[in-house]
Amino acid sequence: MPRFRLLVEYDGAPFAGWQRQANGASVQGALEDAFRAFANEAVVVKGAGRTDAGVHASGQVAHVDLARDWRTDTVRDAVNAHLRPLPVAVLEAERVSDDFDARFSAVRRHYVYRVIDRRPPLALDAGRAWRVPKPLDVAAMDAAAKRLLGRHDFTTFRSAHCQANSPLRTLDRLDVAREGHAVLIRTDARSFLHNQVRSMAGSLVEVGIGRWSADDLAQALAEADRAACGPVAPPEGLTLTQVDYPETAR
Amino acid sequence: MPRFRLLVEYDGAPFAGWQRQANGASVQGALEDAFRAFANEAVVVKGAGRTDAGVHASGQVAHVDLARDWRTDTVRDAVNAHLRPLPVAVLEAERVSDDFDARFSAVRRHYVYRVIDRRPPLALDAGRAWRVPKPLDVAAMDAAAKRLLGRHDFTTFRSAHCQANSPLRTLDRLDVAREGHAVLIRTDARSFLHNQVRSMAGSLVEVGIGRWSADDLAQALAEADRAACGPVAPPEGLTLTQVDYPETAR
Repeated sequence: MPRFRLLVEYDGAPFAGWQRQANGASVQGALEDAFRAFANEAVVVKGAGRTDAGVHASGQVAHVDLARDWRTDTVRDAVNAHLRPLPVAVLEAERVSDDFDARFSAVRRHYVYRVIDRRPPLALDAGRAWRVPKPLDVAAMDAAAKRLLGRHDFTTFRSAHCQANSPLRTLDRLDVAREGHAVLIRTDARSFLHNQVRSMAGSLVEVGIGRWSADDLAQALAEADRAACGPVAPPEGLTLTQVDYPETAR
Repeated sequence: MPRFRLLVEYDGAPFAGWQRQANGASVQGALEDAFRAFANEAVVVKGAGRTDAGVHASGQVAHVDLARDWRTDTVRDAVNAHLRPLPVAVLEAERVSDDFDARFSAVRRHYVYRVIDRRPPLALDAGRAWRVPKPLDVAAMDAAAKRLLGRHDFTTFRSAHCQANSPLRTLDRLDVAREGHAVLIRTDARSFLHNQVRSMAGSLVEVGIGRWSADDLAQALAEADRAACGPVAPPEGLTLTQVDYPETAR
């Protein structure tokens, strides 16, 4: 069966997450329903990153096998038509070989976490950022972030529900910078543990408001104990922006 | 009575525009209701720009007279509390002299119009940009835009409902550039006619898709005839970003 690779964008707000589940609408379920309506066959859409409830994506990657070798423009446009009015869009569809697997072929995931440090509520950025009502020391956050780079046991920054076999991960990037009126935490790694980005973001905000030092952050990592983590940042600030594969790795 | 200057942000989607009116919720009305709930007095909130239904603001300026000389932090926080859950926020409140008038003291208004040129529907930018399903030639748009700079009769780019006495306006900036995945049309002037920015944006998109040349745009301006205007761009792409006053003019 012909395999298609999809580049997918979504607003996570109305979804219980990427993964199809018994309770609540999922992005995967919305895509599978749209494929069924378009191609009249039951399909499984496999994604690169199983984003949590409320988490957004501007560059999620998925793959799907279809019975027919449809034109890729037809796949993209027809699925988008059937997704309406849900805030999910297929940006690109392309034919790939059978050995491409959106999840297992991925060599790098990129996330951005947006924080807006101000006292007034968010009107234009509601649902797209975490509002922190105190000014953030971005230089301190960025310096502390560097203590998490490299290969570590990330148990401290891992959800109790994480199903990964090992808590070891290699963090390749964790940068904090002000862009316009937002503070962006950019991170990438081959893969992340469940809730790892939001756990790191929440702990970095503790540094930004002066409650933690960089040493406190390094100590929390070293403890390899979930109880040492700062508050987990809320989902609405997080976006999966890009997934890299061997042929496109940047 | 003490006069306060307000910096206001709002998502225009749920409103029939800035101006209080008989039918439909307005931003001005929402603010006046919040002031009444907080200060227990009927007030009039005067804005610098009377944005249309669906148009956003990240930097609207308004003024209001209150009976008491409240602390400015109290004004900001109390009004924001009473605005909830509407997507309107007072970012700053400050005491100003009685001769400050948000509308008549303003020396410059800045607007940004966002276009996203792609075929798939907008998931993350829904309600915050105009989707144009053809690729835009941004260099051609920017070059054509320069033909509108300066002092002209802008009748072509003016709503039939415009109440200004004169169609003469001086356009100081009209730049088109790609930023990330969006095409931004940035413009500023002392003041604009009703629907002028959306009319210019719609006509510039005609240039961007190759239907109009720069000469066609200049000709449309020269005709000083509303019938010569391109399609008016929809409101959701437009944001009032800044208003300048003599002491803060940049």
